[in-house]
Order: sequence, then C-alpha cells, then structure tokens
Amino acid sequence: MNHLLSEGIKATPPSFVRGILQAASDPGVISFAGGLPNPISFPQEELLKSMERIVKTYGSNVFQYSITAGLPELRQYIADRYNRIYGMSLTIDNILITTGSQQALDLIGKVLLNKGDGIIVEKPTYLAAIQAFSMQQPVFYPVALTEDGLDLEQLEKALQNPVKFIYTIPDFQNPTGLTYSAENRKHISEILKGRDIVLIEDDPYGELRFDGERLPYIGAGKLPGSILLGTFSKTVTPGMRMGFIISENTELLKYISIAKEASDLHTNIFSQYLIWDYLEHNDLDVHIAKIKTLYQRQAQAMMNAMDKYFPPTVQYTKPHGGMFLWVTLPDGVSAMSLFPRALEKKVAFVPGDPFYIGIENANTMRLNYTNADCETIEEGIRRLGGELQSFLNRTQHP
Amino acid sequence: MNHLLSEGIKATPPSFVRGILQAASDPGVISFAGGLPNPISFPQEELLKSMERIVKTYGSNVFQYSITAGLPELRQYIADRYNRIYGMSLTIDNILITTGSQQALDLIGKVLLNKGDGIIVEKPTYLAAIQAFSMQQPVFYPVALTEDGLDLEQLEKALQNPVKFIYTIPDFQNPTGLTYSAENRKHISEILKGRDIVLIEDDPYGELRFDGERLPYIGAGKLPGSILLGTFSKTVTPGMRMGFIISENTELLKYISIAKEASDLHTNIFSQYLIWDYLEHNDLDVHIAKIKTLYQRQAQAMMNAMDKYFPPTVQYTKPHGGMFLWVTLPDGVSAMSLFPRALEKKVAFVPGDPFYIGIENANTMRLNYTNADCETIEEGIRRLGGELQSFLNRTQHP
Repeated sequence: MNHLLSEGIKATPPSFVRGILQAASDPGVISFAGGLPNPISFPQEELLKSMERIVKTYGSNVFQYSITAGLPELRQYIADRYNRIYGMSLTIDNILITTGSQQALDLIGKVLLNKGDGIIVEKPTYLAAIQAFSMQQPVFYPVALTEDGLDLEQLEKALQNPVKFIYTIPDFQNPTGLTYSAENRKHISEILKGRDIVLIEDDPYGELRFDGERLPYIGAGKLPGSILLGTFSKTVTPGMRMGFIISENTELLKYISIAKEASDLHTNIFSQYLIWDYLEHNDLDVHIAKIKTLYQRQAQAMMNAMDKYFPPTVQYTKPHGGMFLWVTLPDGVSAMSLFPRALEKKVAFVPGDPFYIGIENANTMRLNYTNADCETIEEGIRRLGGELQSFLNRTQHP
Repeated sequence: MNHLLSEGIKATPPSFVRGILQAASDPGVISFAGGLPNPISFPQEELLKSMERIVKTYGSNVFQYSITAGLPELRQYIADRYNRIYGMSLTIDNILITTGSQQALDLIGKVLLNKGDGIIVEKPTYLAAIQAFSMQQPVFYPVALTEDGLDLEQLEKALQNPVKFIYTIPDFQNPTGLTYSAENRKHISEILKGRDIVLIEDDPYGELRFDGERLPYIGAGKLPGSILLGTFSKTVTPGMRMGFIISENTELLKYISIAKEASDLHTNIFSQYLIWDYLEHNDLDVHIAKIKTLYQRQAQAMMNAMDKYFPPTVQYTKPHGGMFLWVTLPDGVSAMSLFPRALEKKVAFVPGDPFYIGIENANTMRLNYTNADCETIEEGIRRLGGELQSFLNRTQHP
C-alpha cells in the first residue's frame, strides 16, 4: 500500500483533534476539546420555514446542478454586508462560495503552492490549516503570536525567505483566542505593502465579538493581493459547510474557481438557497447578538473558574470573542502528558502540540467554552485544576 | 500573478463545458451540451417531507459539525443496497461519503499521485476527471474505448508503464454512452489480477439502465485494491453533492479520509440525513423506474431523429442507459469547427476535444438527451442535421 501513496498524503498529519474527540466522547467526560458552536446558534425553526419557502418558490432549481462560483443572490448578500460594515466596494465577482472555510484553505494551497514553497503562519496556528497546506508540502515559517498580534521582528525575518503567502487569523484566533491590535494590523499592512505576497485573513469568528470594538482588517479592502475568508458555520450552521472567499483579485479568484470546479463542481446549492433565504427573511445581527451574550457568559464562567481552581503559575488568554482560550503551563511542563491523566478525571482539552509545526510536548493547551453550560464549565475546570495541581507538584518537585 | 501560481493549477484545464453551457444558455438555443438530470428525478415533495421529519427528529444534530466518514446510517443503507444487488459483503467501514463524485476524484488524485506518476484512462474519458487528476500533473496513458469496452491490447501495452491507477466508467460511459461487455470486464479483471494497481470504477449511471441486464463490476467485490464510486446525483438530486466511495481496502480509505478531512472536514450533514431519511421512507427502485422510462423514451427520440436527419456518413452509439450518446463524423471533420455554426442555428453540443488528452479538432461530439422533451429533441436534431449536412458538403467538397 505505502508505495502507492503520494508524498503529499504522507506529509499530511491525520487530525489529532479527531482522535481526542473520540477519546472525549464518553458521556461522563466534560470536554473542552471540541470546537462545536452552541446549538443555540442554529436557527432551526426559521431554517425549516426557509426550506419550505425555497422548495415552493424555486422548485427544481434548488436540487439541480449549479454554477461553481455560487448562488449570485447569496454572493450579493455577502458583498452588501461587508460593504456596509467595512466600507468595502465588493461586487459578486469578488465572492466565491466554498464548501466550508476548510475548502478555501485546500483551494488556496492547490492554486498557490508548489512543493517546497515558503508560507508564513502564526505560532501556534489552526491545526486544520496546517493539515490542508501540508498536502502541498510547503516550508512553514512560523511567526510568534503575542498578546498584540504577530511578532513584527520575526515577521520581517521570515519575509527574507521566498514566501508565497501569510496565513493569519486576526480575530479571536484559533487556538489562542488572541486578537491582533489595531497598531499591529497597521504595521503588518505597512510591512506587506508592495510585496508580491498573498495575505490570507481567516475570519470565522469576527462576528462573535462580545467585548470591545470591531477592528479593521489588515489587508481586505486595502492590499490588492489579499484574501479574506468567511463562513456561516459559527453564525447559522456548521453542518451545511458554507464558507466564502472574498478578494479584490479577480484574476486569483478565477484560478481558485478552476480548482474548486475540479474539487467538487460547486457547493451544495440547496444549502446556498437556504442560507440566503434565511438571511433575507431574518435579521442576522439580532440572531448573532444572542450567541454573543451566551458565549460571553460562558467565557467568563471559565475564566472565573480558572482563577479559582488553577495554580497561580498557570496563565491563560482573555478572549474578546470567539470560542477558545489558551492556557500556558510553566516552562517544560507537557500538556500532552497531562492529557491522559485529565481524561481519567473525566475532563478533556486539546494539548498544544498539533497547533505548532514540529513541536512536541508543548506547555500549552486549547480550551473551548461554547458547548457546555456554565455549571458544567465550572465543574470541568475544577477537575482540570485539581489534576493540574497534582501534576505540577509531581513534575516540578520529583 | 502568474509567478505565484502552482504548477498544478497551471496544468489544470478550465472546464470547457462551462464555457459552452454559457454560450448555450440563450433561451432560444436547444442544448444537448449539458449533463443535467431531468428534474423528474428530484422527488421534491418527498424530500420536503423528509426535511420536516429530520429537523423534528434529530434537531441540532442535522446542523452541527459531524464526522469525516459520513453519517453511519446512510453508509449502512449503501452497504445493504450493494450487498443485496451485487452480493458484496460491505460494512460501513467500506463506505466514505464524498461531496459528490467529483470530490472522490480529487481525493484519489491527492492520495495516490505524485507529479509524473502514470495513470490509465479511457480514450475518450470524463472531462472533469481529466481536470481533477491534472492538478497532480500525472502522465496520462489513454486506452481506446471500443463498442465492447477497453481495447485489451492497448491496455496491456499501457500497463508496461509504471502506473498508479486505472480510471474507468464501465456503464453508459461519459461521454460515449458505451458499456463494457461482460467478456471485456472479465478480461480486464484477469489482466489486473495480482498487479499492484488501483482500479477505479466510476459508476454514476449504473442505476439508469433502461435496456438489457445489469453486468457485474470489474473489480468491486473481487479485486482487493479496487475503488467503486457511486452518487445520488442522478437518482435523487445533484445539487446536494452527495457521492460515495466504496472499497474493501480500508487502509486506502483511511488515507482518503485524511485527505477528505483536510479538504472540507465532512460532507454537508443536513443533506446526508435528508437523503438517508428519504431512502428509508421511499422505495428508491420505484423512483428510479420512472426516470429510466423517461430516459429510454428520450434516447429513442434522439436516435430516431438522427436516423431521419443526419447524413448517413455520421455514426452514433446506442446507449443502454445513462444520459449521453456519442456522435462520430467522417474522418478529418472537426466537431469544434461545427460548433459555432450549429450555435448560429440555435442548437448546441459538446465537441469531443475536452474528453481527450491533447487531441484537437476531433471528429466526435457528445449529445445529452435527458433534459429536453421528445419534440424539442427532434427539433434540435433536425437543426443539427441540417447544419451538419451543409458543413460536410463544404468541408469534404471544397
């Protein structure tokens, strides 16, 4: 078998998180490992009404083959929304519907990367982006992510290598929950200006800000080569795999569209009609406000519990939105080694390792707070804190 | 821009057919160019009932993230159906749900192909398979497709090259409408036995046989390395992009699953529940019988009209099922050159070129008969026949 496999698939790590989710699926386990939106974010009743309406109104069109770029009406809604909120001047030609944001990552890798090409990523970064890009066997140049955003010195140094693109998640980053400051965004934009490098801003969580003001994008609407990724996974439904690529570079979008056609012809057209109809007949901002209120409460419950139950040498990020926070253990303490012990105590998280390129036994872990109620969060953090305390005692004073 | 692009995307032809469909979208044009199932094949009322049922019964599960391999219940239905009809012994571990069959082609290319690897394809073959595989820059070894199936001499010769897989469409092939004979299948199976080569049987149309008896698969259930591709696009709805991979090689499926996860995490779970619920509550065979009756009538209408209106030097295949037939013009006559003239007469088809590797001005064309009523088919063939006659007069007696 092995000799039949491509180098690309051999270079692609199987998702670590899937394995962990399996381990954490025991109903007795309190899992902070997943990345599931709270079901409150699925407007089930309204979606059912939209289903009935689109079948009645558009008949066979919602079941037939369709065009690769995506439903024009949905692309127009997206263009209008970004134009209104961010003062952009997008048309439907700047929007391509993708089968979730994950497909956008796959398509970008296909269109831009040859084996050995350089790409800059955050350190740590989204593990499924590592997976998608790895298929093309690039050289990763990780740049440290700080409380303010990208480490600019490291960025300038990484840019001395031949690099095709920079992959960033500026708002409520996965896995850290960190947000780039306005200052940091401006600096990055200045550093990239005039360079022939594609800036990717992956923005699945931007709508979920529950603290502070929206910040401007780094490149979207400003740097001509930049790509902005969006999704309805965190605001309407992830199960329908509905994402989108926004770019002013229509030449680049044309190639991405060819890659998409070769990949799955087009995204589920029924779901495109459905999401569009839902958006036309409901106020998305009212719906999102409910999600944000809940997530803020859950994030606060987790932070309160960590202050109460975690040893003082353990640090964590304070997210202004999104779904995750990031815990840093004392130097040299492996979150991976902690994992099986925590699981015995019926609590799960994702150890930091899979979010880095080639780092093992990192002293970090990702916690998700959106898919458990506040009492469960407190109990889970209590269990984790207890195990963490005894683990630190053992590893630090052997 | 160009210097940022990957070699893979530069090697991938944009779909010719999409351009043609655009040209043929003028409402006055009778188009035999598309590959659209007839809307009769979409059980709209029943699907709407299933939507209401699954939202009521499974609630947030139909909207949430899900597992990469696909809904276990749907995979079980598929396993049961193939076990029943073909005497296979599949379990759900032999089935992976894909975002349409097109994604299966993309995933297979990703998992098996390095740049320069050899693959055997039919000559002519499905153009979007050429597109999907081209992304990996393989070397294509085309083997002529005859009335009986693959040319066995050419197959043996092609197999002298280092080859990773063979891509076939044994039933009602796209584009030719040809079906491999039982004899030809047996010979291919014998030739491949013991060789370390993956046989891909792409079977989107097999359920649509309106003439003669079902024939056994070449490799599925027999050759351990073989892959069988199926889809609900031609029997329930293409718009939801719901295909599947069947293989007894669970090791290979594991790698395909990693590639799928990196590509789009999982296929639209709402649509998986929907198709499964529809299949559980309706008799698929009764539904398919209606489609077959219609397609047989349409195919016959097209053949009758061709006998009436086409010059006698023009030949065509007589399909036993599926959606297409294949027209061969006299030697040296370019169907591509005929296309703009036919379009002026308000009739469209797909010239043969994009179905070959590196052949231009082929004397062949693909006609689709499923998406127009019999009167429209007759009128379209009348127009095409007239233009064909005068085109042949001009090109053959200049």
